[in-house]
Amino acid sequence: MMITVQKYGGTSVGSCERIQAVADRVARTRAEGSSVVAVVSAMSGETNRLIQLARDLAPQPALRELDVLMATGEQASAALLAIALEQRGIAARSFLGHQIRIGTDSAFGRARIRNIEIESLREALAAGQVVVVAGFQGVDDAANITTLGRGGSDTSAVAVAAALEADVCEILTDVDGVYTTDPRICPAARKLDRISYDEMLELASLGAKVLQIRSVEAAKRYDVPVHVRTSFDESPGTWVVREEAGMEDILVSGVALDRDQAKITVTGVPDKPGVASQVLGPIARAGIVVDMIIQNAGIAGDTDLTFTVPQGDFDRALPMVEKMAGEIGAAGVAADADVVKVSVVGLGMRSHAGVAARMFEVLAHENINIQMISTSEIKISVVLAAQYGELAVRVLHRAFIEESDA
Amino acid sequence: MMITVQKYGGTSVGSCERIQAVADRVARTRAEGSSVVAVVSAMSGETNRLIQLARDLAPQPALRELDVLMATGEQASAALLAIALEQRGIAARSFLGHQIRIGTDSAFGRARIRNIEIESLREALAAGQVVVVAGFQGVDDAANITTLGRGGSDTSAVAVAAALEADVCEILTDVDGVYTTDPRICPAARKLDRISYDEMLELASLGAKVLQIRSVEAAKRYDVPVHVRTSFDESPGTWVVREEAGMEDILVSGVALDRDQAKITVTGVPDKPGVASQVLGPIARAGIVVDMIIQNAGIAGDTDLTFTVPQGDFDRALPMVEKMAGEIGAAGVAADADVVKVSVVGLGMRSHAGVAARMFEVLAHENINIQMISTSEIKISVVLAAQYGELAVRVLHRAFIEESDA
Repeated sequence: MMITVQKYGGTSVGSCERIQAVADRVARTRAEGSSVVAVVSAMSGETNRLIQLARDLAPQPALRELDVLMATGEQASAALLAIALEQRGIAARSFLGHQIRIGTDSAFGRARIRNIEIESLREALAAGQVVVVAGFQGVDDAANITTLGRGGSDTSAVAVAAALEADVCEILTDVDGVYTTDPRICPAARKLDRISYDEMLELASLGAKVLQIRSVEAAKRYDVPVHVRTSFDESPGTWVVREEAGMEDILVSGVALDRDQAKITVTGVPDKPGVASQVLGPIARAGIVVDMIIQNAGIAGDTDLTFTVPQGDFDRALPMVEKMAGEIGAAGVAADADVVKVSVVGLGMRSHAGVAARMFEVLAHENINIQMISTSEIKISVVLAAQYGELAVRVLHRAFIEESDA
Repeated sequence: MMITVQKYGGTSVGSCERIQAVADRVARTRAEGSSVVAVVSAMSGETNRLIQLARDLAPQPALRELDVLMATGEQASAALLAIALEQRGIAARSFLGHQIRIGTDSAFGRARIRNIEIESLREALAAGQVVVVAGFQGVDDAANITTLGRGGSDTSAVAVAAALEADVCEILTDVDGVYTTDPRICPAARKLDRISYDEMLELASLGAKVLQIRSVEAAKRYDVPVHVRTSFDESPGTWVVREEAGMEDILVSGVALDRDQAKITVTGVPDKPGVASQVLGPIARAGIVVDMIIQNAGIAGDTDLTFTVPQGDFDRALPMVEKMAGEIGAAGVAADADVVKVSVVGLGMRSHAGVAARMFEVLAHENINIQMISTSEIKISVVLAAQYGELAVRVLHRAFIEESDA
């Protein structure tokens, strides 16, 4: 029998009315001849309510206990959906992380799944029951409750789908698919029918918050077909799948804008081995994630080192860099928190030359100055002054997507 | 090292401020040289909030799933108290029913504890940690989450205290002990310093809602000293303990009023074997608990059968009885929902004759008519017209408790 895993996010289970709608949808999927595993998030608002309770008690709540607290949100949703299904005469059974069991490491608040024992799920499915899984949670080797981090229910769903060798993992959410770019910025944005795991990974890492990055990694590793679609109607969304013939014919699949960037430049860095690690080491040890890094060795024996950090870490990072710049004898430090990153992503870049050149040409035509460039096999990113971000997205979307659609 | 089990009810953990106060109290108990196991209820209001969510989805929510839902309340409280303790620099660790583990049968919503594996608790205590236990919940042999019924956290606390052979099980609540009667009815009511398990069992079954009956049964079986006291200050409350020398010297320990009674009489019942079970069988099968039962065989070959049921079941029970009365050829059915039960309880009754006679005399002096009488070894209960209930309590309290105090 076909197995469908459906993940319902916080908005989709945000009220009793919405839970009833989810139960109806599960019932329909089942009536169409598929076994159903529903993976649920906490009701929208619940996670924040719980965090606030904990913060009222302790500015930095003990991580083990915070996970015990947070896990109640998905536990309640799972029970409520099972209750709604049973009320319809549909046999249903909720499973918590420790009941399945979803084994994780012990990194509370950001645990990673190591192994899943799905025997109990298989038994329930074989008995004709709908399986309702509390997302976001697992259990470590010492039976501690763990959670997988924000968006972790996506990863729960993909991991369960992989373990059950499900036919599809549907991510039911409040948007109707993955778009070529943010429709709020570019009204010409259109929904993609299909996208490869690699492209989705690049887009997710660029801030398109449709899927947790780890869930895409897991889907790619275990070859789980993911279908991102709206929970509000039956319209098809976007399939995130293994790369297929023809996908490379599309040069650029998406244009992404990442506003969470701040730029720091160390000028006149002595051109010696180890200076980059000296500058960046303290920042990494402080837990700050450095995104783009550019170094250009000049001919005069010194160089400039430029990198970006998240906006929220900028004020912490800058003094560290200034201190280290002095110690290594750099000329100075320049900083700019008013920048954004714009990226184009597409499998087609692998086989088509000239995407970068065309991108720079389009931006130059609008007199947009490029401050940094970074490339991967299927992505080109540029850092720009913040005020040009939305314009850049629109002109790049027109050049690469709308005109190639025509 | 001394081990103190402290059970904190819903009011005691009803807000972040109250949880901070509980953490302070746990810290003080620990500073006085005792290991501490804190057993917590759900925050007050939370249990009703969860039930309402479930009822909005289904008039009769699936029992297995309702327990999964309800268990989140105590889980959250346990995590929050552990967070508050850790914030004070006190090592603490929450334990859920399946982590301890508290093994129960599979009667969802009213499960009974069968066995407790306390190895993990012992390890935590040995490591100097405060153990915080989510009350009210257990786990059955199939790893399903179960709950122990209203007030079940009391039983969790006593069971854990028994398993750990704790020195005391403190029940910290919003009243400051067990009273000779309800102070709202009788201002002369006074707090008892000590009471025996058997007396407490009778009082609990009579509706004095200080302790869940099962917790008293468990305390008696395992000889756990229970100390009922307020969580709002340090004043001592009432010790519920094994019967001690001198306890029998007190004739009556308490006077209880139970308003949750309705009376049904079947008149002219043929005096044949089996008629009582024919009348009461259908009621029992409907899950209605019959309390007092009186049958008086007359000399004319028939008899009257009178019994009481809870007010809430009266409307269901009456048509069943009327139907059965017709089938067995009884003369008729009389019913009265406007009655109460008043009881006096005391170990002293076992060795002192005349308590019943004195009780009837006191009531007769007030012209209060007795409708039914039922006795146990340490209790005499009478059913009266509802309007005399409070008066009866006051005059019996004066006769048996105030005058014997003097």
